[in-house]
Amino acid sequence: MPALTDRVIEQRNVLIPPRLAQPNDRVVLLSADGKRFLVTLQAGGTFHTHMGQIRHDALIGEPLGRRVVSHLGHPFIVLRPSLHEILMNVKRVTQIVYPKDVGMILLKLDVGAGRRIIEAGSGSGALTVALAHGVAPSGQVYSYEQRDEMLRATERNLTRVGLMEQVTLHQRDIAEGFQERDVDALFLDVREPQAYLQQVEDALCDGGFFGSIVPTSNQVSDLLAAMQARPAFIGIDVMEMMMRQYKPVPQRLRPRDTMVGHTGYLIFARKIAVDQAGDEGFTNTMSRKRS
Amino acid sequence: MPALTDRVIEQRNVLIPPRLAQPNDRVVLLSADGKRFLVTLQAGGTFHTHMGQIRHDALIGEPLGRRVVSHLGHPFIVLRPSLHEILMNVKRVTQIVYPKDVGMILLKLDVGAGRRIIEAGSGSGALTVALAHGVAPSGQVYSYEQRDEMLRATERNLTRVGLMEQVTLHQRDIAEGFQERDVDALFLDVREPQAYLQQVEDALCDGGFFGSIVPTSNQVSDLLAAMQARPAFIGIDVMEMMMRQYKPVPQRLRPRDTMVGHTGYLIFARKIAVDQAGDEGFTNTMSRKRS
Amino acid sequence: MPALTDRVIEQRNVLIPPRLAQPNDRVVLLSADGKRFLVTLQAGGTFHTHMGQIRHDALIGEPLGRRVVSHLGHPFIVLRPSLHEILMNVKRVTQIVYPKDVGMILLKLDVGAGRRIIEAGSGSGALTVALAHGVAPSGQVYSYEQRDEMLRATERNLTRVGLMEQVTLHQRDIAEGFQERDVDALFLDVREPQAYLQQVEDALCDGGFFGSIVPTSNQVSDLLAAMQARPAFIGIDVMEMMMRQYKPVPQRLRPRDTMVGHTGYLIFARKIAVDQAGDEGFTNTMSRKRS
Amino acid sequence: MPALTDRVIEQRNVLIPPRLAQPNDRVVLLSADGKRFLVTLQAGGTFHTHMGQIRHDALIGEPLGRRVVSHLGHPFIVLRPSLHEILMNVKRVTQIVYPKDVGMILLKLDVGAGRRIIEAGSGSGALTVALAHGVAPSGQVYSYEQRDEMLRATERNLTRVGLMEQVTLHQRDIAEGFQERDVDALFLDVREPQAYLQQVEDALCDGGFFGSIVPTSNQVSDLLAAMQARPAFIGIDVMEMMMRQYKPVPQRLRPRDTMVGHTGYLIFARKIAVDQAGDEGFTNTMSRKRS
Repeated sequence: MPALTDRVIEQRNVLIPPRLAQPNDRVVLLSADGKRFLVTLQAGGTFHTHMGQIRHDALIGEPLGRRVVSHLGHPFIVLRPSLHEILMNVKRVTQIVYPKDVGMILLKLDVGAGRRIIEAGSGSGALTVALAHGVAPSGQVYSYEQRDEMLRATERNLTRVGLMEQVTLHQRDIAEGFQERDVDALFLDVREPQAYLQQVEDALCDGGFFGSIVPTSNQVSDLLAAMQARPAFIGIDVMEMMMRQYKPVPQRLRPRDTMVGHTGYLIFARKIAVDQAGDEGFTNTMSRKRS
Repeated sequence: MPALTDRVIEQRNVLIPPRLAQPNDRVVLLSADGKRFLVTLQAGGTFHTHMGQIRHDALIGEPLGRRVVSHLGHPFIVLRPSLHEILMNVKRVTQIVYPKDVGMILLKLDVGAGRRIIEAGSGSGALTVALAHGVAPSGQVYSYEQRDEMLRATERNLTRVGLMEQVTLHQRDIAEGFQERDVDALFLDVREPQAYLQQVEDALCDGGFFGSIVPTSNQVSDLLAAMQARPAFIGIDVMEMMMRQYKPVPQRLRPRDTMVGHTGYLIFARKIAVDQAGDEGFTNTMSRKRS
Repeated sequence: MPALTDRVIEQRNVLIPPRLAQPNDRVVLLSADGKRFLVTLQAGGTFHTHMGQIRHDALIGEPLGRRVVSHLGHPFIVLRPSLHEILMNVKRVTQIVYPKDVGMILLKLDVGAGRRIIEAGSGSGALTVALAHGVAPSGQVYSYEQRDEMLRATERNLTRVGLMEQVTLHQRDIAEGFQERDVDALFLDVREPQAYLQQVEDALCDGGFFGSIVPTSNQVSDLLAAMQARPAFIGIDVMEMMMRQYKPVPQRLRPRDTMVGHTGYLIFARKIAVDQAGDEGFTNTMSRKRS
Repeated sequence: MPALTDRVIEQRNVLIPPRLAQPNDRVVLLSADGKRFLVTLQAGGTFHTHMGQIRHDALIGEPLGRRVVSHLGHPFIVLRPSLHEILMNVKRVTQIVYPKDVGMILLKLDVGAGRRIIEAGSGSGALTVALAHGVAPSGQVYSYEQRDEMLRATERNLTRVGLMEQVTLHQRDIAEGFQERDVDALFLDVREPQAYLQQVEDALCDGGFFGSIVPTSNQVSDLLAAMQARPAFIGIDVMEMMMRQYKPVPQRLRPRDTMVGHTGYLIFARKIAVDQAGDEGFTNTMSRKRS
């Protein structure tokens, strides 16, 4: 598979991060007062701020993790953005999946290099970015979205971080089914996930990982009821992630005054092959025993 | 790089999960009452339980995600374990890093295919497994541990899941420094992380990601004070992750009665190059402004 | 103020706690290893434990807050129990309302001396004790319970702490209505609170305080829907209380490993007079605006 | 008991809430868009808002819990404020103690009718109001505060809700000791509570309840260390209260997007008599065993 090797080399800013800033790299400029600016470097470009200007050519070819000074004398640190910073800076045209939830989704869906994963809808592409990053270099994410605006936002966000090759975008109503078969994992971020469980079963490999996020408890109940009516879904888990941030002051350590109170409920399950006899008793027992 | 391609083929149960169970595969056997048994398949082997026996040969070569029946007639589902299940089933000789924390660590350290990451100490190897999974196929984790028992546990856990090639184990006191230079990220899970910040600076690339986990608020204060005294650490974040699980009963949806109240505090920062003048004002302002 | 002295003698164990232990007093015996024993003092009685015996007569007439020694030489501290300790030590024949929830209920129902409050069902009497304590000396709690076992448990628990005079127990199906009118507050701890809202309206004074606790989100939805269909309920609030306890070790301060994950959802509202025109628009707007 | 009746009449808006609004009563006017206005009724007075005016005389002598209409035709509901609403509407000249914390403080300090309780400092008087409400009609709160502005705010807030008779205000440095002896409970809301533990021991009765609130974990450690060095403090508890509010929409039930992330850590203990031999071993064992 020499193609694989080539691709690795082409996409090096994702896979093996460069030590020297390159044209088209996304970098974070961190100001002394803690503000973060995400910039895509372009030969001849200029970064403008009220703290002065910085020419991109002064950064291109230079090492990252260092200080630069604007023409007004203000210092900035030039950094490669982390996946976490990229997720928090996705251009939003809709509610995004938050990092606190993304981390758990990656673990529960068993996301890793080489996996094939379906996601619907794409939304603003925050989770798409995380999944694409997780399956690189040899995997693929198939992202479904009907709305033009969302699809363009996802494509823009993926392109900005150099992960577009890892993703296939479908503008399509998932009620008509997914085009892929035998994928490793499938995640639904749609209003009525319970309406698409047959399509999920058709697309997921036996033993594959299913996940969903919904904002209300009523939707959790609706999805659980639909899953428990289908013998193919077992090992159901429901959870919320909460993140509590602290002010990093050693002599006066304390949590921040406000925190995110809610983003969504996460639901996970495994999809299995169902023989003629059905496995209903099995499925129901399963969920109950784990309570 | 043909070597890379070869390695991909050899480690296929990690990178491209097989649809048919193979010798040496780890599988989960899920019983109808919700118990999970992790088993390594071996030609001629037998899985024994009070619900009956299953011959490994009845599984090897067969598809996953299906039902098998023990000689006493009890059904089991055969599944590939998720990274989440592997982490929760690591053989523990010490407190492990929990999945709720692992997910955030992967995002904040920007773990991805091809990265080079240092970790100390290895502990039971739970985080080591997650990091190795995240940098596969072409990256490497350098894991430091002084205690024999922990080192053997980590090696055993990595071998069981086929990730040993992704990891270099060092039995060594990190006070003497790390052997690698210019790594992308570095994570400390040790009692006094503040004692090793010079060693961290020496090993991390400029712009590299630093993280640590400690169980007590006193340790957070100690680490923050040490970091803020060093101009190389900026963008400091401190947080706790809390996970709340629900009983998956659609008509009576409610959180479980008990939850994990605490595992540890997470501390993250970026390491930058420090010029002669020092960047102390910069560093301190940074942390304060983010409050 | 001789009147004060007189009153103290009548209601002494509730209103103005005595400094000297008296017959029939409830006391806590705290052992050196942190165990708490609630004991009712009786002339001639003996407290038995594996750490030795203590004669009640050695405590009666003596000051509280002091050390006593068992016949085997083990020390105990004799303390008056707090309302918190009483609540945590209520003899349970059913799930009790926890202190973390009781505190908020007292504030939201505006419980205070002299109030008249209805509660249903009594359960084991934990909330009954807290309400009775809150309305003493001149108020009254009317507690409804159909089940014999619960009623006896509540009576036993109230008697043990000397609060029976503050409470009227009714063994009665609340579907038939409450016997009191114009009460200040009313709390429902029953399986289907939405079934009794007409009865609640009939018993509560205009402007009175309504509250309920239910374990599942489905019940919250059912109750909210029923309340919003009735113009008499406004200012609806829904909340959960979470308590996080710490190990009290100054050099190693950290939350306890486990915490209570859930007890119940709390719902509160005000009941108003409804004129002929109805106030439906008012009610609905209200709830929505507070979101 | 004529004495009681007389007192009740004087303090009637606290103890037995009137059904008809009276001059000097505090009432809440609730608008149809969910805004709450606290108003003190005065003969001849007028309530002004952008939704129109309401003459106080139209409310005085009328029942509460009913609708009134402004001269512009906007409806308002007239309600007696709950203790919870009073606490949330205290005029703040400093950070106040929140209802989520107040509820637990009342339970852990065993606040009830007739108790004598010391508090320092008064702050804006939010906790003072709750304590005064809790000890009414026959108890007393002794509130210490050095700063003029705080003292005046506390007095103003107590007067507005008719609880000033329940409180004695002291403008005094508590380093010089408390003037009362043998009080039932004592609460410190000061920057360095550990500096005043001797004064606490002198004022609290044996077996009395001690509590404190501090915003940082460093202060918790400092206070715990000081308490554990003194054999008079046993049964130490440390906790945080978290409140999670929900949007009251039955078909789309979900927590609010943001929540209060932190107010303070609560520390509680009992004070006991210490004999010559000291009880140090006792005290320390106690705390450790409860972990």
